[in-house]
Amino acid sequence: MTTRPVPPGGVLGVLGGGQLGRMIAASAMRLGLKTHIYADEGDNPGAEIASAATIAPFDDAEALDRFAAAVDVVTIEWENVPVDALERIAAAGVPTYPNAATVRVAQDRVAEKTFLNEAGVATAPWRQVDSLDDLKAALAEIGAPAILKTRRFGYDGKGQARLASPDDAEAAWEAIAGAPAILEGMARFSCEASVVLARGVDGTIQPFDIARNDHEGGVLRLSTVPSGLDAQTEERLRAAAIAVSERFGDVGVIGVEFFVMADGSVLANEIAPRVHNSAHWTEDACDLSQFEQHARAVCGWPLLAPRRHSDARMRNILGADANDWPRFAAEPGARLTLYGKSEAREGRKMGHVTVTERRRP
Amino acid sequence: MTTRPVPPGGVLGVLGGGQLGRMIAASAMRLGLKTHIYADEGDNPGAEIASAATIAPFDDAEALDRFAAAVDVVTIEWENVPVDALERIAAAGVPTYPNAATVRVAQDRVAEKTFLNEAGVATAPWRQVDSLDDLKAALAEIGAPAILKTRRFGYDGKGQARLASPDDAEAAWEAIAGAPAILEGMARFSCEASVVLARGVDGTIQPFDIARNDHEGGVLRLSTVPSGLDAQTEERLRAAAIAVSERFGDVGVIGVEFFVMADGSVLANEIAPRVHNSAHWTEDACDLSQFEQHARAVCGWPLLAPRRHSDARMRNILGADANDWPRFAAEPGARLTLYGKSEAREGRKMGHVTVTERRRP
Repeated sequence: MTTRPVPPGGVLGVLGGGQLGRMIAASAMRLGLKTHIYADEGDNPGAEIASAATIAPFDDAEALDRFAAAVDVVTIEWENVPVDALERIAAAGVPTYPNAATVRVAQDRVAEKTFLNEAGVATAPWRQVDSLDDLKAALAEIGAPAILKTRRFGYDGKGQARLASPDDAEAAWEAIAGAPAILEGMARFSCEASVVLARGVDGTIQPFDIARNDHEGGVLRLSTVPSGLDAQTEERLRAAAIAVSERFGDVGVIGVEFFVMADGSVLANEIAPRVHNSAHWTEDACDLSQFEQHARAVCGWPLLAPRRHSDARMRNILGADANDWPRFAAEPGARLTLYGKSEAREGRKMGHVTVTERRRP
Repeated sequence: MTTRPVPPGGVLGVLGGGQLGRMIAASAMRLGLKTHIYADEGDNPGAEIASAATIAPFDDAEALDRFAAAVDVVTIEWENVPVDALERIAAAGVPTYPNAATVRVAQDRVAEKTFLNEAGVATAPWRQVDSLDDLKAALAEIGAPAILKTRRFGYDGKGQARLASPDDAEAAWEAIAGAPAILEGMARFSCEASVVLARGVDGTIQPFDIARNDHEGGVLRLSTVPSGLDAQTEERLRAAAIAVSERFGDVGVIGVEFFVMADGSVLANEIAPRVHNSAHWTEDACDLSQFEQHARAVCGWPLLAPRRHSDARMRNILGADANDWPRFAAEPGARLTLYGKSEAREGRKMGHVTVTERRRP
């Protein structure tokens, strides 16, 4: 694997065709890089703006080999990309950032929590759950309320069941259809926050400012910067995220989501080994977006220290709210981003609006 | 012609495949609009990122008709697009912003200067020149030094000859090969500046902050914002540009270039009925770029009042200087934009670098 930077005119391959890939592609192309998006059949807003696109299943070995031969480096915009695909591309001599090991951790909530704890990062109490008996035993240890989540393929609140009391065990186990799972104690947090940072090929780490996040029904609705947290709490968050990044030793942007407790302690909740929804505001409030920083990192370009020039509030536009685009488009101080998706299914992320204002001193 | 806005998913057609079209397309796509670029055979960095591209001569009636049928509105990124093409598209019922009349003015330096003077905007003294005798008579009236320019198809200092004294008349006439021309008195300016503004379908005008410009060999090298000019001079510049925009009564972004004289008076030099190189900094120093504002205007979306959050210096990257990309990419506080052109011909605009810093109060 080469450590030379991919020069302008080189090709950044992206696995996944959603809005994150679309925004990575847009930033990469601003740097004069070409992009090639590989995605499953479907609504692929990223493929529309890429220099090239391969639409094929992720287990199509031939398509993967052709893709690997056509690109200089590969990244992902979706952590549920089959790890086999990443391994096949790496075996063909094309670096993938993140690598298969990182993605394997992020795809499995048990591996993720284990990884966090081994990195010295606190989490809510958790237990691996492979049976209803496991669940009952875990509940006895952790107590209710708690939340049962499938180990794999959950996102945006999907594959989850809340348990208000031990009596809910059977219903929760049925709700997730008996899939391999994890039981997590419900953190009674005072707020949620995330740290999004980039790590370069030379090991340099550049964090963006910390966002305070508001979720509804497991889906991010609002990210606010500055977070309003005190400096000590922010430092704790940043240190935890840096510990995660250094333990991976991987390259590119990652997002780490946290619960912030009333006493200022912090519990990591989730790792996303990719650009992250809670840092979309960087495009509008920093001199360098997470998308460009990610493209720089994975292409071996130098990272820059982002300067935040404005305060920002980023709201997601979900489902049919996208029909209100004329109102968003007319909002003073607001920057509207629409992902070009054709179908506004309920709860689907259709775009976002970032309101920026002069940074308070 | 409809005045309803082009909704997300609608198609913005762009005549011209260069970097300006590329940047318009990138901004339009962020709004969820599709783009279709129409360009001559050649190096078309804009076509690479557009949703669709037609590569055909501008006098290919069939290709123009197919293009018109595929788009909702058409704009240009290059003012030397044949006016006939615009007229054909408009006749097919597709609005073009700018319209043919505006572009006709911008394509002919005599029409342009006449238009400026009729709008009440001062210019350097000028005379129409159709023969060597005309040139000698014009020189006698205007005096030397002066500059002889072809009326049409000049840009970035091409098609021009400087006359230091009346003795240079024959040489200058030969240098421009006896093409229909204009003689302009050389303005002994203290600096150059430009006003870039947008006019919406409802007649709203939104100017960006004024840039001070430094040219070398007729090519823009540096734009600086704030301009450093006093408020009265800036007001004069803005008023002149607004007078131009209102006289056109057209829609979209225009740039007006000026000479600023030592006494604070201002002389208009050139009108570009399109997004303008001297406002590329808006992408990095405003909450709304000229490219997005232009896409909004021509698609009938509301204009927004741009907020400049940072001070900025934009430098063009010309020709082989693009090989220095690793240095530009590592410059702290600098945002690098490369146009994806394959060949770095001497003097060719390959990209730009904008250094932003915290806005001084």
